[in-house]
Amino acid sequence: MMKTDRIQAFSDGIFSILITILVLEFKLPDGYVQGNLLQAVLQQWPTLVAYVMTFTYIGILWLFHHDMFSCVQRIDARLNILNLSSIFLITLLNYSMSLLAESLVTLNTRDLQFALTFYALLALGISMSYFAFYHYLAHKPSLLASSRYQLQFRRLQRCPLLSSSIYFAALLAANLKVYAGLIFLVAGILFHGFAYWRAVRHTVTT
Amino acid sequence: MMKTDRIQAFSDGIFSILITILVLEFKLPDGYVQGNLLQAVLQQWPTLVAYVMTFTYIGILWLFHHDMFSCVQRIDARLNILNLSSIFLITLLNYSMSLLAESLVTLNTRDLQFALTFYALLALGISMSYFAFYHYLAHKPSLLASSRYQLQFRRLQRCPLLSSSIYFAALLAANLKVYAGLIFLVAGILFHGFAYWRAVRHTVTT
Amino acid sequence: MMKTDRIQAFSDGIFSILITILVLEFKLPDGYVQGNLLQAVLQQWPTLVAYVMTFTYIGILWLFHHDMFSCVQRIDARLNILNLSSIFLITLLNYSMSLLAESLVTLNTRDLQFALTFYALLALGISMSYFAFYHYLAHKPSLLASSRYQLQFRRLQRCPLLSSSIYFAALLAANLKVYAGLIFLVAGILFHGFAYWRAVRHTVTT
Amino acid sequence: MMKTDRIQAFSDGIFSILITILVLEFKLPDGYVQGNLLQAVLQQWPTLVAYVMTFTYIGILWLFHHDMFSCVQRIDARLNILNLSSIFLITLLNYSMSLLAESLVTLNTRDLQFALTFYALLALGISMSYFAFYHYLAHKPSLLASSRYQLQFRRLQRCPLLSSSIYFAALLAANLKVYAGLIFLVAGILFHGFAYWRAVRHTVTT
Repeated sequence: MMKTDRIQAFSDGIFSILITILVLEFKLPDGYVQGNLLQAVLQQWPTLVAYVMTFTYIGILWLFHHDMFSCVQRIDARLNILNLSSIFLITLLNYSMSLLAESLVTLNTRDLQFALTFYALLALGISMSYFAFYHYLAHKPSLLASSRYQLQFRRLQRCPLLSSSIYFAALLAANLKVYAGLIFLVAGILFHGFAYWRAVRHTVTT
Repeated sequence: MMKTDRIQAFSDGIFSILITILVLEFKLPDGYVQGNLLQAVLQQWPTLVAYVMTFTYIGILWLFHHDMFSCVQRIDARLNILNLSSIFLITLLNYSMSLLAESLVTLNTRDLQFALTFYALLALGISMSYFAFYHYLAHKPSLLASSRYQLQFRRLQRCPLLSSSIYFAALLAANLKVYAGLIFLVAGILFHGFAYWRAVRHTVTT
Repeated sequence: MMKTDRIQAFSDGIFSILITILVLEFKLPDGYVQGNLLQAVLQQWPTLVAYVMTFTYIGILWLFHHDMFSCVQRIDARLNILNLSSIFLITLLNYSMSLLAESLVTLNTRDLQFALTFYALLALGISMSYFAFYHYLAHKPSLLASSRYQLQFRRLQRCPLLSSSIYFAALLAANLKVYAGLIFLVAGILFHGFAYWRAVRHTVTT
Repeated sequence: MMKTDRIQAFSDGIFSILITILVLEFKLPDGYVQGNLLQAVLQQWPTLVAYVMTFTYIGILWLFHHDMFSCVQRIDARLNILNLSSIFLITLLNYSMSLLAESLVTLNTRDLQFALTFYALLALGISMSYFAFYHYLAHKPSLLASSRYQLQFRRLQRCPLLSSSIYFAALLAANLKVYAGLIFLVAGILFHGFAYWRAVRHTVTT
């Protein structure tokens, strides 16, 4: 059995690195001509959009991850593997962000559809990994710091199910009407923020 | 309610990553010819200037961030969101640094004006986020480790207000006389260092 | 004598950074033409294969590293040097991963043989460093948190010996039949996962 | 007064990030032709030399930094500024490493002289910052965890003075006979390792 603090430190490290290296995406555009820095930077608004989205998304994922593990007292091998799998998908957000930024520059419909599909699929996978977390913990009271958390995790399961369906809608929408896909994707991320806000209010206070 | 140590570890992680990856900006210049390494490196002095500035700036921001959270005992959702927003702006310093370095190479007036404006705007936003921190904490004694800190945060509010006005001056100055903008920007960062020095002397000692 | 928690935090930091920066390998392919993003990304499957492999590998190495140090109470200079050497080899996995990804793109037999040989050699070295860890700790009861762990480390020695021979087989196989080399390499990594699963079940529970 | 654990965590974070991102220097060489991966990688031996050197160097600097702060109980503003300055120089090692690797590829004498001079200057500065650490702590017993450490820091002052003179010799040698410069530089780093080994043996054991 692993103690919680180390897996939490390891995961926190990955979250903080991931959220920080996103900024490396901001590079001086290739087509930059002297005296045109303002225009060159303004043309990078897609990167800014994708950055704000992904920064917010990873930030909220960290908040949920953090709160979940603060209710966990012991880690077994299954939880460890689940955690590594979840983090694996989350690190790929760096890639999906740069694909989205790139296709928002060219505004090519097919590219944009693919980038949104890829991002939504990834988000769907991440939501499903959080569902697996909550489901597993709700059925493993021996890992929890208090038996009160069992009910809490059972209730929390609805959140990733709901966000999964939003991301699934984004997936479908993107391939019908590109901008609808983007709106659903943003909605999914905002939903996480809203869900966190509500969860915090209903959490058993220490 | 989140415990302070985890949000602090997460933020410390981001600060230390951000301050370290700044050095990735130093790359061998493209126009480098064999036997000319010295000249090629000397031509990178703008990167060094921007690097020293930004490293110092982030270092001091960390000192303030650290000291602030060492007075905080509990974190609520608002403080969490405020922290993520503040850190979001701080990570963008990596980008503003590379824009400044680039425009100090070409010395193109328009580019330099824009790079300084962007940097000053970002610094203004960061100062305002620190003002929001102090203001919020001064009115939320329930989050503080000791009620003595309430007065301290109320007094500290002046610092980011003052630095905000320096950065606002930098913003205006940059668009009138480029070098004046740079001087004000550096002055703002030096002011933080000075303010930290003073704050440390007046802090309630543990 | 160094306390365990700091060397563990330092090593955890390196593991989490290394596992996160692997994702920087995913970049938009050079030959990307507008409207072809899907094809361009699909052609990056070798990077995905190498990424999944290396992420899993580093993840499992971290699990073993973590569990080992949770049995260690004190660190001497030799263990410190051993740890830095082991981590040195592990950081090079980033490089071997990109070589493997690159040669899976071109599918050039000679390149693929070299990339697999390099990866297998590295994995061999890493396994040998873990053998050195277990061997050293099994003979230094003064460093352990409990004398029970001495026997445990003696038993654990077999794991890196076994994986070393798998990686040695991968080395030979790669130079005879390329795909056999890849299969042995993947088998070595899966073996680690299997060994961890077994080790966790037999570990003295706290 | 800042507690030691946070500044240590922040510094440890920077050390572990810095030592990990060194590996990003290993990139597929530009002149790489299909089927020539082995030759292309073999031509990167300079990067490997510079990498091993710098990894070892930063590793030992961390060991000294770690041991120093484990004797410190409280941090004042001066120690904080000293620490940030020291770390500033250490992060620049990433840059000096890539300059050295580059000039070992071309083997151009003038470039190599400059790269070695730059590296030696940086190492000189880092040694001087460690001297400043020890000197400051030897005269500030109020910051130490035990008064016994005062004598220890006074004795430790000789180490950075000695390594400074080795790096100064490297500086001079590099500009007379290039390879002598490289040998002195490596000697300086090996000296740190040797000094650490000796220091560990003479340290007051907890």
